[in-house]
Amino acid sequence: MTLLLKAGRALPIPKHNSFTFIKPYSPNFLRTMTTHRRVTIVGSGPAGHTAAVYLARANLAPALFEGMLANGFAPGGQLTTTTDVENYPGFPDGISGPELMVKFRAQSERFGTEIITETIAKFDLKAKPIRMWREGFEDQADPTDTTDALVIATGASARRLFLPGEDKYWQNGISACAVCDGAVPIFRNKPLAVIGGGDSAAEEAIFLTKYASKVYVLVRRDKLRASKVMAARLLKHPKVEVLWNTVATETLGDGSLLQSLALKNVVTGHTSELKVNGLFYAIGHDPATQLFKGQIDIDEDGYILTKPGTSYTSVEGVFAAGDVQDKRYRQAVTSAGSGCAAALDAERWISEHFEEN
Amino acid sequence: MTLLLKAGRALPIPKHNSFTFIKPYSPNFLRTMTTHRRVTIVGSGPAGHTAAVYLARANLAPALFEGMLANGFAPGGQLTTTTDVENYPGFPDGISGPELMVKFRAQSERFGTEIITETIAKFDLKAKPIRMWREGFEDQADPTDTTDALVIATGASARRLFLPGEDKYWQNGISACAVCDGAVPIFRNKPLAVIGGGDSAAEEAIFLTKYASKVYVLVRRDKLRASKVMAARLLKHPKVEVLWNTVATETLGDGSLLQSLALKNVVTGHTSELKVNGLFYAIGHDPATQLFKGQIDIDEDGYILTKPGTSYTSVEGVFAAGDVQDKRYRQAVTSAGSGCAAALDAERWISEHFEEN
Repeated sequence: MTLLLKAGRALPIPKHNSFTFIKPYSPNFLRTMTTHRRVTIVGSGPAGHTAAVYLARANLAPALFEGMLANGFAPGGQLTTTTDVENYPGFPDGISGPELMVKFRAQSERFGTEIITETIAKFDLKAKPIRMWREGFEDQADPTDTTDALVIATGASARRLFLPGEDKYWQNGISACAVCDGAVPIFRNKPLAVIGGGDSAAEEAIFLTKYASKVYVLVRRDKLRASKVMAARLLKHPKVEVLWNTVATETLGDGSLLQSLALKNVVTGHTSELKVNGLFYAIGHDPATQLFKGQIDIDEDGYILTKPGTSYTSVEGVFAAGDVQDKRYRQAVTSAGSGCAAALDAERWISEHFEEN
Repeated sequence: MTLLLKAGRALPIPKHNSFTFIKPYSPNFLRTMTTHRRVTIVGSGPAGHTAAVYLARANLAPALFEGMLANGFAPGGQLTTTTDVENYPGFPDGISGPELMVKFRAQSERFGTEIITETIAKFDLKAKPIRMWREGFEDQADPTDTTDALVIATGASARRLFLPGEDKYWQNGISACAVCDGAVPIFRNKPLAVIGGGDSAAEEAIFLTKYASKVYVLVRRDKLRASKVMAARLLKHPKVEVLWNTVATETLGDGSLLQSLALKNVVTGHTSELKVNGLFYAIGHDPATQLFKGQIDIDEDGYILTKPGTSYTSVEGVFAAGDVQDKRYRQAVTSAGSGCAAALDAERWISEHFEEN
């Protein structure tokens, strides 16, 4: 306790999740030393762990910060919130998201990746070496960790409305990825709903017509934000019905699967119930780049920009992989592929800059 | 036989391999009809099968031509020639190349991909729809198959010298991929050899110094083709010894693992034996693009050019994935990721061009 008092401020108790529990007075609270590494990965989804496998096999002793509920996700990222993954190649019978992430993590560990269950809360990407502060130590002058090369694989999260009932039916009728989940049997020849009014909502709705008997598109306003061509394709599709000025207020079901939505017309105030077996959010994604803003080139939607065809970013020695730099494909396997690419790029960069590696 | 005689020429008997056997008088020999499909994949490695999984799940009923010893490979491509794959994410204990390909193929089939064990021997990419001729029917006026969209995933093959003894020690000390195989235990702290004099030979040799006690680089001439900076890094590396004017003439071993190489100095004619536990070819790759030359934009090394960050090629409706368009990373997982990207791009293109999809 002395040290805590000396520090002159209440150190926040790190958040914990069901997978990890760090004692409040563990040695982490006494950190004063800075640990330097050749290469560090932040993020623990398919991109992060694939980068780790390649960097570890290249004898570079990477550390991987898997985060403690970083961006609201357990270690493993978005896949930990999905049930069956049918489209990750190599698993013909499908595999659950959490199970797949356990395998990814085990593979990283097998080759010697140092996996650290803490969140990096502050970065100084312009420093050489790059400086990082773990959550709880943001105000300390010295960083907790430094690294020569950094792979950013912090991912993104699909926006959701967290309506009443949503937690119960998430992945049991509610999804944020039509490509991933549209093909599952519970949606076949059933009415489905998409929430959103932009290009991706239009695209997801049209995609879902492959499976659905009908697709309702719930649009909060009286017009679409989608481009003219996408809007035209959406509006003329025989299976699509757009519900204007409409919001969902609750998700309803039989206790195991989604069965309908409570709707409200925001102009008239009229409420109604819409029978649908699926609800797909298409209201955008938030790439986890808040901590990097102003330090690295980011596009207008917040994604890290990479040199096309590579994982190089605008900052020397910093590489990006996975959904944090991909707003086009966002799949587990594309993310894993880009993690491999980042590792190979980082390995090459390290071997160019540090004689002994 | 009547039909064969009528044709006025001997129809070649298609080659077969150990996995497939097509009877010489099977209905394939009587083909006169042209089969049309919305989308077709050529190639059966990680890229092809991943594209198939995504296209099949998008209800597009893809066909996949896995080839009959196309480019010298069994269906499944380069991975079928490897033993343990340790770096494909999802398999922490490793998996054999052929086993992994069986899983990829089973996953394609599960979602309804039509897998065809024949090789496409001729393409007309400029036609709409795209026209294709199966091996044995190249001279027929009508194509055997047509397709609106095409995913080219025909892969590449690492060049090898096929020295005496090489078949016995391939994957038992001989490899064409340092990144894939450098880390395996049989190479740890052992002398290794690299054959090649270009940038990739220099890079692979330096990469292998992470594991090896010493790396010999066998260069046929008295200078390197590598860039100045790579050559300088190679030549000053304490673990590297370049053997100039030197070729390997035979691979020797104990019957299960490579133990040494027979060498010859091409200037003096002097022969010698070099004790090494590993031989890595770094003499380039041949992308399987011969059939597309003049029909699609290809770079100076024969790789299909794609629009950066996508799988779009210079030909409308044609998408490329995997090693046929990637000379930078060439890994199973990067290939699978690009197959997914090609499928999503093709799906989008189809949905823009064909109302009903």
